[in-house]
Amino acid sequence: MAAAAAHHPIGHPLFSRIRLAGPSDIPHIHKLIYEIAVYERHTHLFSATESSLSAHLFSYPPFQSFTIFILEVSHEPFPENSPHNSNANYSPVVRIVYSEVPVDDPEREIFKSEDENVVVAGFVLFFPNFSALLGKPGFFVESVAVRKCYRRKGLGKMLLSAVVNQAVEMDYGQVELVVLEGNETAIKFYEEMGAQILTEWRVCDLTGDSLRVLHTNDCIDHYGEL
Amino acid sequence: MAAAAAHHPIGHPLFSRIRLAGPSDIPHIHKLIYEIAVYERHTHLFSATESSLSAHLFSYPPFQSFTIFILEVSHEPFPENSPHNSNANYSPVVRIVYSEVPVDDPEREIFKSEDENVVVAGFVLFFPNFSALLGKPGFFVESVAVRKCYRRKGLGKMLLSAVVNQAVEMDYGQVELVVLEGNETAIKFYEEMGAQILTEWRVCDLTGDSLRVLHTNDCIDHYGEL
Repeated sequence: MAAAAAHHPIGHPLFSRIRLAGPSDIPHIHKLIYEIAVYERHTHLFSATESSLSAHLFSYPPFQSFTIFILEVSHEPFPENSPHNSNANYSPVVRIVYSEVPVDDPEREIFKSEDENVVVAGFVLFFPNFSALLGKPGFFVESVAVRKCYRRKGLGKMLLSAVVNQAVEMDYGQVELVVLEGNETAIKFYEEMGAQILTEWRVCDLTGDSLRVLHTNDCIDHYGEL
Repeated sequence: MAAAAAHHPIGHPLFSRIRLAGPSDIPHIHKLIYEIAVYERHTHLFSATESSLSAHLFSYPPFQSFTIFILEVSHEPFPENSPHNSNANYSPVVRIVYSEVPVDDPEREIFKSEDENVVVAGFVLFFPNFSALLGKPGFFVESVAVRKCYRRKGLGKMLLSAVVNQAVEMDYGQVELVVLEGNETAIKFYEEMGAQILTEWRVCDLTGDSLRVLHTNDCIDHYGEL
């Protein structure tokens, strides 16, 4: 009891911050996407590069197009003079989570952030979608990831809640995502957040060769070329 | 044989045009969305109104955000002086399809277009999505519909091909959509186009109450409010 009292009464604090990502976050985002590919056994499809991400992300104002929130953590309060503490488009959210044992991050160096003693722990990539039925936009969450050593602390929920909050603030109608059928942990997690799993829908993809074949064989003649 | 020879050798021609939709198309788009809701038995969820569509569509340049192609048909060639024959962002595509019997359109008046003798026969609603794995944008096809009397003439494929062509022209990586599990006609149609049905993914939706509950109960404190 005496030993426990020497620590914070409810465990070791981990300061967590969610902020808008920008171009300087691309190397970390690229590594996090690769980790998702490994987890989902999709490394054979992984073709994102830092330069393809640079080319397509951050071209439009946040929330209008592809948008990324970065999750950062620190064992200390975030520096007060950090440029990341404010942003014209989004006020970062900060929360303290507690864990029984201190987090041991084996990739601390690889994921270190611009702010001192701050580490990137995850991200969420989302963009506007539209529901014809509701006649309203929403957000589609394309990727969400929390690095392994930072899981089970509510940080994934914090990331998704940030997207939900933004959706509600913009009067958007829904937040949607897709999940792998066998991923019971993720399905339980989303269901606990109140998500409905729409079991009757199937995702169809036209990619690579089928895109090109359709393009070549298509029977469309541009106006005037009939 | 003599009677057949009096007609066009391969049937009755139907001139078909795909063009970008604009604000004046909203009443037709609204009706077409309602017809999809009826078909998918989702009328209890149908809350799109002409004004909600007006508020959210056509705010950004086409292809950067929510985009609609309108499919129009006519028994005659399209008028050469139509303002719809050209557009700075997209050259309309025109094709002639043939049917054995002339099309009898019972809702001709409801769906009549701005051009004389032209009728709206369908639409496709799509917008950019992003694949973190590919590190590239693509298009997500949210709705595609061809009115009943104009089906089985290749017009649905013409609409989807127009989206695919646009994706290829923009060097996009994929065209994605979702389909109801039991809709074998649609699944066969997409598979014949080369689409892969990703049976292992499930769509999750946070809508209505769960959005608001999450927003109210969320444990996020904005920076400085800790």
